[in-house]
Amino acid sequence: MMFSWRQAFVSVARSSADQKTVRRINFKKVIAYQKRTSSSMADKFKLPSRYGAGEKSVWVEYIQLAAEYKPAVNLGQGFPDYPAPDHVTKALAEITTGDNPLLNQYTRGFGHPRLVQNLSKVYSPLIGRQIDPINEILVSSGAYEALFSAILGHVDHGDEVIVIEPYFDCYDYMITSAGGKTRFIALKPKSHSENMTSADWVLDEKELVSLFNDKTKMLILNTPHNPLGKVFSQSELEMIANLCKKHNVLCLSDEVYEWMVYKPHKHIRIATLPGMWERTITVGSAGKTFSVTGWKIGWAYGPAELIRNLQVVHQNCVYTCVTPVQEAVARSFEFELARYNSPDCYFFSLATELLPKRDFLVKTLRDNGFNPTVPDGGYFIIADWTKLANKIDLSTEPDKYKDYKFTKKFAKEAGVLAIPPTAFYSEPHKHLGEDYARFCFIKKDENLQLTEKLIREWNAKK
Amino acid sequence: MMFSWRQAFVSVARSSADQKTVRRINFKKVIAYQKRTSSSMADKFKLPSRYGAGEKSVWVEYIQLAAEYKPAVNLGQGFPDYPAPDHVTKALAEITTGDNPLLNQYTRGFGHPRLVQNLSKVYSPLIGRQIDPINEILVSSGAYEALFSAILGHVDHGDEVIVIEPYFDCYDYMITSAGGKTRFIALKPKSHSENMTSADWVLDEKELVSLFNDKTKMLILNTPHNPLGKVFSQSELEMIANLCKKHNVLCLSDEVYEWMVYKPHKHIRIATLPGMWERTITVGSAGKTFSVTGWKIGWAYGPAELIRNLQVVHQNCVYTCVTPVQEAVARSFEFELARYNSPDCYFFSLATELLPKRDFLVKTLRDNGFNPTVPDGGYFIIADWTKLANKIDLSTEPDKYKDYKFTKKFAKEAGVLAIPPTAFYSEPHKHLGEDYARFCFIKKDENLQLTEKLIREWNAKK
Repeated sequence: MMFSWRQAFVSVARSSADQKTVRRINFKKVIAYQKRTSSSMADKFKLPSRYGAGEKSVWVEYIQLAAEYKPAVNLGQGFPDYPAPDHVTKALAEITTGDNPLLNQYTRGFGHPRLVQNLSKVYSPLIGRQIDPINEILVSSGAYEALFSAILGHVDHGDEVIVIEPYFDCYDYMITSAGGKTRFIALKPKSHSENMTSADWVLDEKELVSLFNDKTKMLILNTPHNPLGKVFSQSELEMIANLCKKHNVLCLSDEVYEWMVYKPHKHIRIATLPGMWERTITVGSAGKTFSVTGWKIGWAYGPAELIRNLQVVHQNCVYTCVTPVQEAVARSFEFELARYNSPDCYFFSLATELLPKRDFLVKTLRDNGFNPTVPDGGYFIIADWTKLANKIDLSTEPDKYKDYKFTKKFAKEAGVLAIPPTAFYSEPHKHLGEDYARFCFIKKDENLQLTEKLIREWNAKK
Repeated sequence: MMFSWRQAFVSVARSSADQKTVRRINFKKVIAYQKRTSSSMADKFKLPSRYGAGEKSVWVEYIQLAAEYKPAVNLGQGFPDYPAPDHVTKALAEITTGDNPLLNQYTRGFGHPRLVQNLSKVYSPLIGRQIDPINEILVSSGAYEALFSAILGHVDHGDEVIVIEPYFDCYDYMITSAGGKTRFIALKPKSHSENMTSADWVLDEKELVSLFNDKTKMLILNTPHNPLGKVFSQSELEMIANLCKKHNVLCLSDEVYEWMVYKPHKHIRIATLPGMWERTITVGSAGKTFSVTGWKIGWAYGPAELIRNLQVVHQNCVYTCVTPVQEAVARSFEFELARYNSPDCYFFSLATELLPKRDFLVKTLRDNGFNPTVPDGGYFIIADWTKLANKIDLSTEPDKYKDYKFTKKFAKEAGVLAIPPTAFYSEPHKHLGEDYARFCFIKKDENLQLTEKLIREWNAKK
């Protein structure tokens, strides 16, 4: 069978709501069920080859781990465990039960009119050009579907796509299912000092140059970066931009963490660099912007002739997104735009709120033998755990990669769950991620304090 | 350019909310903009061939028509213009602002636990077997994405798929983008009597038999049928089922109108026929079930080994659906299941509510020279307009097909917008739809009364 029983849980992945139900699942029963259902029709109805073997995902395995071992704190998954801004959730409540019943019915497929107008209002000044809400924006079922529509809408058989490691694992699946070939290049640390920041993780220019050729269709950029928290600098972006221009390559810029940048760092949109608007598709997320990851509203913006391809893919797979949620996101943008110059504006207050959480978790990790890379953006910390190697017996964990062994054993012993970063590297580069673990810090203070206590106690016992 | 400016509006398609904004769009400006943005990069960044030319859609054109000519009533689009049940919208409002902030965050990707459990509770007794909520159900971004995941998850290059005409236009785009080939067979009227019902539209068994061969991977069934309203009978379903079994073919059964069936007709789920569960994927819709088309929650259920392929596609394109909306749909099912034996249960009261609307529109059409096919299910009426041909000058309309000419001229003269059914036929079969127009009757009574007045006045003037 090409699809393992574990994959049935793949999308429990970034799951959060109703974890209890997931825990209630009897995994042995599920395996038994799966074994029973082998079918004589299996050969005819096998997965089309564009989807490979329907690979095992880190999310499946780590949700299962969370369900089985019930770690006291789960810093694996990237979503807040505390409420979104009041005005955001209230907007949705008011819309669905409000005077206009049409707000519960189909809306414009490429984006609800009030939402695309507000996206244009938000991004036009940031990009320095008037963004046409009708032709230059697509609203999608989460940033995830925007990435899908961008990749499927532009990558054809034989095209190559350059992806920077570590990378959001869906990129490669999407590229492959489009018939493309992924060319990987890893960010590598310049040093391994004890005060490393995400800016110390850099690309080798010669290596990057060597990946461009006649088949290169697209480069995927992610800034601020998941999981490193790297905020690409002006000169780094210029290097990438110049190569894209030289080789007539499209840049797909995943900027979902755009508002989570810690001073003095600044998020620079690559679409604002000279000659880049015309070859850049930028992706954003309402889930990340307003701390409602479960709302699944994202968007892509860029020149009409590039966005058109995304529209065709979108109309072929989901057609239109949830109307009341789009209206609520539109009103949330209006609310924030009205207080854009205030520190209360959520676009800015979110980073202010996250900074002490970041610093607390960095200190906790450092105080207990980890070497964390301080992130300049995003809400993840990558931490080197190798100085703790002598305190933890990894021989009992059967996994192939050391980070899988470490995170599993650490979850069992300390009760703190992190994600193994080799999941975000291609097979030949997995060794680059083995010394690290990824921790998420967009969690309520009591859970971060509990994390500190658990890690300290674990360390003291050793 | 492969993508016309009109297509920028394709997904205004089933649009409803904020029609005013759509009307405000300056179409001339949009055309001018599109002409300006021709790019030197166009060749490299053209649409991958799997998407064809990004074909023109009927929805684009007719939304544009609605925006330009502002017909007094729009019976083109398939959604209610009146409120959904109170408990449904209240559930969403309570969830998003409620005590559990995690209900605004990511949930299980293949379906929110509470929703898949309730889907199992609803369908297990209807299907006559215990449906496993984890392995046998996928929750999708509308039934549309369930169709996409089923088609992309099973159709590979060279596979053939049998589609019954008239058909929901997305089927063919999805099949083609998967590398498959669509084989069409049309439902044809047994007679053209003045009391035709949708049961008079039938398949020719010999013709259907002739379409099956070694390459046939899938047959797509739609019952109750859009746009005819046909509710396939036991013997018709048996004929289809026997052919699927004989040729080891998968049946994708689009049953989104399952609750809109008018007595004495009964919706029969083809998955309940002997030997069919193991080869059937059935698709349903919360939008259609609870009159909230803008909520975009659908599902597919079937045997685990078939659903697995859909899960892989789903995790590759949207990953997970909107959490608070899934929770609201789950609670709505619980509410209805608790009153399942009462006539108030929305599963049954909806058809009771729609019946007088259907009869009113049938009578209106008959009284004014149309020959409507009375639908046994769904919320559309297909009506033959050819007896009115001498009352309307179609020579001013430049379209290729007569139904396009008629519906456009009729919208301009009578102020009532309908959809041309040739949009739901393949090129060689379009003549079969030319004599008809499709009217939607899930509209508030005042709008149906206005329709009657407008058509009567138009007819009287002629």
